[in-house]
Amino acid sequence: MIEEKLKTIIRDIHDFPKPGIVFKDITPLLQHPEIVAEAVEAFADGLKDVEFDVIAGIESRGFLFGFLLAQKLNKPFIPIRKQGKLPFHCISESYKLEYGQATIEMHEDAFLPGTKVLVHDDLLATGGTVVAASKLIEKLGGEIAAYCFVISLDFLNSAGRLSRFSENVISLVRYQEE
Amino acid sequence: MIEEKLKTIIRDIHDFPKPGIVFKDITPLLQHPEIVAEAVEAFADGLKDVEFDVIAGIESRGFLFGFLLAQKLNKPFIPIRKQGKLPFHCISESYKLEYGQATIEMHEDAFLPGTKVLVHDDLLATGGTVVAASKLIEKLGGEIAAYCFVISLDFLNSAGRLSRFSENVISLVRYQEE
Repeated sequence: MIEEKLKTIIRDIHDFPKPGIVFKDITPLLQHPEIVAEAVEAFADGLKDVEFDVIAGIESRGFLFGFLLAQKLNKPFIPIRKQGKLPFHCISESYKLEYGQATIEMHEDAFLPGTKVLVHDDLLATGGTVVAASKLIEKLGGEIAAYCFVISLDFLNSAGRLSRFSENVISLVRYQEE
Repeated sequence: MIEEKLKTIIRDIHDFPKPGIVFKDITPLLQHPEIVAEAVEAFADGLKDVEFDVIAGIESRGFLFGFLLAQKLNKPFIPIRKQGKLPFHCISESYKLEYGQATIEMHEDAFLPGTKVLVHDDLLATGGTVVAASKLIEKLGGEIAAYCFVISLDFLNSAGRLSRFSENVISLVRYQEE
């Protein structure tokens, strides 16, 4: 089972990025190409009945499995980045953080209206960034076909925030408690 | 020829990130999985006589082809990131920018001393980040086996800055003038 393998290899880092948070560190996974390959297969399998045209990956860790999966499934890859990083004309979306706010951007020529988009990030936590990415995609006339994450922190109950965009949420590893 | 294909698809963005700079935008390339596959083949071909154990990719765009190539060649992938992003114990290296400085980090358990490292980034410009990444790798007892870049801006004459670490520099696209 890929979930068990991933749970064994993903590392808990206590008090990162700040006291009280337990961070799920995927860097040990990146060191095992054979498990990476299994994870990509598991994504492909989970997506076999989902129709989509492009994969959008969220900077930075979403570039890893997002681009790998795009290559595996022969799909275009769209980077969603922090403000000021993408060089061409962008559309942007801001969202609240615990303190302050963040803005993400996507090129305005990323895809044509009506395109079905698979959204990828490594981790679904509170869902703030993923919801902002979804709004960006809808602004450009795209339709969210599905979400896929390596990890979802189910105890944060974020899937509900995504259901207005798509009910298809694939996570390889789910944590029910902190 | 992969170089001609890439030159056709990579887009010049004038005055980004600031006036007078011509930025090479690879996002149109990311939309063409078949050309991405050819680029990865070209990297693999250029590296066929190079012995190395792991691939280190530099955040953020170096995560794209770096991780793809690691998967293709069945190698561990090591992320090198901006300060404060990696959760485990890190070693760090600072370097000068035109104004101010930047710091990059790598996990101190990224690899064992004596490991041969292939360093990847999407673009070789002045080489500041890549030299700092190389110093990080040497700090941890690693040996630079080779560098590979999608693009190198040869008119900036940066390959000389890398030659003290390794003479093996593979670039798929070289620009001789701005």
